[in-house]
Amino acid sequence: MRAVDLIEKKRDGGELTPEEIRWLVQGYVAGKIPDYQMAAFLMAVYFRGMSEAETVALTVAMVESGERLDLSAIPGIKVDKHSTGGVGDTVTLVLVPLMAAAGLVMAKLSGRALGHTGGTIDKFESIPGVRTELSLREIVEQAKRIGAVIADHTAELVPADRLIYELRDVTGTVPSLPLIAASVLSKKIAGGADVIVLDVKCGEGAFMRTFPEARKLAEILVRVGNRTGKKFAALVTAMDQPLGRMAGNALEVRQAIEVLRGEGPADLREVVLALGAELLVLAGEASSPEEGKRSLSRLLDTGKAFAKFRDLVAAQGGDVRAVEEPERLPKASQVVEVLAPKAGYVEAVRARAIGVACGLLGAGREVKGQKVDPAAGVELLAKVGTPVEKGQPLARLHVGRKERLLEAQKTVASAFEIGPVPPPPAPLILDRIV
Amino acid sequence: MRAVDLIEKKRDGGELTPEEIRWLVQGYVAGKIPDYQMAAFLMAVYFRGMSEAETVALTVAMVESGERLDLSAIPGIKVDKHSTGGVGDTVTLVLVPLMAAAGLVMAKLSGRALGHTGGTIDKFESIPGVRTELSLREIVEQAKRIGAVIADHTAELVPADRLIYELRDVTGTVPSLPLIAASVLSKKIAGGADVIVLDVKCGEGAFMRTFPEARKLAEILVRVGNRTGKKFAALVTAMDQPLGRMAGNALEVRQAIEVLRGEGPADLREVVLALGAELLVLAGEASSPEEGKRSLSRLLDTGKAFAKFRDLVAAQGGDVRAVEEPERLPKASQVVEVLAPKAGYVEAVRARAIGVACGLLGAGREVKGQKVDPAAGVELLAKVGTPVEKGQPLARLHVGRKERLLEAQKTVASAFEIGPVPPPPAPLILDRIV
Repeated sequence: MRAVDLIEKKRDGGELTPEEIRWLVQGYVAGKIPDYQMAAFLMAVYFRGMSEAETVALTVAMVESGERLDLSAIPGIKVDKHSTGGVGDTVTLVLVPLMAAAGLVMAKLSGRALGHTGGTIDKFESIPGVRTELSLREIVEQAKRIGAVIADHTAELVPADRLIYELRDVTGTVPSLPLIAASVLSKKIAGGADVIVLDVKCGEGAFMRTFPEARKLAEILVRVGNRTGKKFAALVTAMDQPLGRMAGNALEVRQAIEVLRGEGPADLREVVLALGAELLVLAGEASSPEEGKRSLSRLLDTGKAFAKFRDLVAAQGGDVRAVEEPERLPKASQVVEVLAPKAGYVEAVRARAIGVACGLLGAGREVKGQKVDPAAGVELLAKVGTPVEKGQPLARLHVGRKERLLEAQKTVASAFEIGPVPPPPAPLILDRIV
Repeated sequence: MRAVDLIEKKRDGGELTPEEIRWLVQGYVAGKIPDYQMAAFLMAVYFRGMSEAETVALTVAMVESGERLDLSAIPGIKVDKHSTGGVGDTVTLVLVPLMAAAGLVMAKLSGRALGHTGGTIDKFESIPGVRTELSLREIVEQAKRIGAVIADHTAELVPADRLIYELRDVTGTVPSLPLIAASVLSKKIAGGADVIVLDVKCGEGAFMRTFPEARKLAEILVRVGNRTGKKFAALVTAMDQPLGRMAGNALEVRQAIEVLRGEGPADLREVVLALGAELLVLAGEASSPEEGKRSLSRLLDTGKAFAKFRDLVAAQGGDVRAVEEPERLPKASQVVEVLAPKAGYVEAVRARAIGVACGLLGAGREVKGQKVDPAAGVELLAKVGTPVEKGQPLARLHVGRKERLLEAQKTVASAFEIGPVPPPPAPLILDRIV
């Protein structure tokens, strides 16, 4: 087989066989196929797309490129979740202990913040003492013991995805549905779960800006995912304004604790319950999403999910007092308010700008390897629909890095739109693909 | 500027500015833009194409990547010619001395054989003593002195073309009209001529298999070429069967000498006269192609073109006796005939197969750097339309390498198609773009 022949086959609209796709991926990971041939292939895929069978083959070949998290020795149903990335997306920190409290096993491998979206690992690490760099053995052991893990992506899992994603990032081949699908699915499949729910974010603050795009990605993910032998479901959820009221690392932990105690922002709770309910249905533990939501609500309201979160933090070396008394979490030394320039109703809080502002305040990173400030972030005091008076605070900036504070203030101010009438209510869960 | 932004602009159908294209080409040649980004860009160009303005900018940027042959100090009009490659395409060996005999200056930079097509440099070097690796200074000096040069492509001219072509070859991005056009035109413009004629071959033995493809390439070449400040014309010529009766290095020199003496195959003479006449018209030395052909015919028939060829060979160190007595040219020790399997009329002599057979006999090279056998090749004893008896020789194989003779015999035999009725006559010059 020659790489150039496979490039030309794809370029001319042909369908590659699973053997050809495996040969390409294996050869690339082994360094036998150079970057420039993979880059040309990826651009041909961008233009020609991939059939469902090709996408399945690419996903499987990527999974085979590295180790897998083997959870098969653990009794019970193993569940997982993936979000395409948003702002204030505290869902994982709540969902992992919640599913464990429901008797399922959720060993979640997560990433770090990059660009305008946060990363669960950075958030979880803002709890003093928490360690996320676990070995595969440690992950399995902890999952078996308490049913809940939040660990950093390990390098051994799906090296093909890391290599291909880095290449896509610099060759203009990121926005390709089959490539996105294979990237997401390969990581989930290597993560060892039996049933997986996908949260495809849609809107101004998400990778998929429009509903048709997001819905199409969700459909491909579920169709291709189900052909790999796992059970998949997806929700398309709104990401025009940030979820919840907090964006930032320790700020989102505080918010997660609120939801785990049966309190907290209604929108965040709603997304958590909807995603958790899909997992219960897929796992055969609930006969309908509604039933699933009811039983998960009880676990939040009775403190059982919170107890599991405490166990999770303790298991990973975290200071449990910081969970019980969130005022012990890292706090910014400076808090600055952004005020409403006029009276009216909040019509929009652009999530992307809030995410960018978090980065400017020190909560995110522009390039890999940068340190993040656990205390930095944006606290929203008004969300879409809130009536405000002129001069009333719209948001609090928790300042980590002071250098770009002025820019952060302007960015947050520009994120808000205030109009004369209340905007019509917008749904949060836009679609469900099962 | 970032390469990924330019890749995405092209990917999304945008038009790059001349500055952006120059930045890409310069950065690539300087090693600042890696192969994988150029590969992704080239594949995006394959799918999106390039505007005429972009193709001009690419051509100019490629010319600027290296030295140029500066013929400006030489009096008279400097002409040049490019062929997209065929089998038995002896045209250059005749046209260079012919144009010099007509009072024009033709310093032709040529290439070597690769794949199934021959290369003028290999052919010219089959004359004992001929040296083709001339410095730019030697080329200019000889052009000034005798008006005719046939020299090897020098590395200094258009390094961007060499680098980009090598990358295209392994990334499935060769068949892109703007990339082909920029490659052809940049070399011609760097070659220093004022007026240039392009021979776009069309048919089974050519890169462009169909007339619409060949015509489209010819049009783009002339339109883009004329926007660079030079004068261009193009002919689309048939390359279904080989031109002339010879394919191979010394064999084609013999054939060139015949044409230069006013003899030789009519089809080769016709293509030479047609291309030469376009140059005379562009140079203002003839008022019509017909008038141009008439004056060039006289130069062939009176021996003036042949005399110039003798000067050319002498100037480059060649043995003039081998030109005056072509039996002194390298001869194969073994000649094998291929016989007609049945009686009838020759309906086709597939040029590609004849070219491949030449390679098998030792006249070509499969990879760069291989030595070629000057004596090897195929001599056609029958061409399309020739009536043949069963057992009559169709071709003579001049054997250089014996190892693959059997394969060469089969290949040549398979090139011939014999049918019961004479095929209708087919035109040789298919179109003229001025």
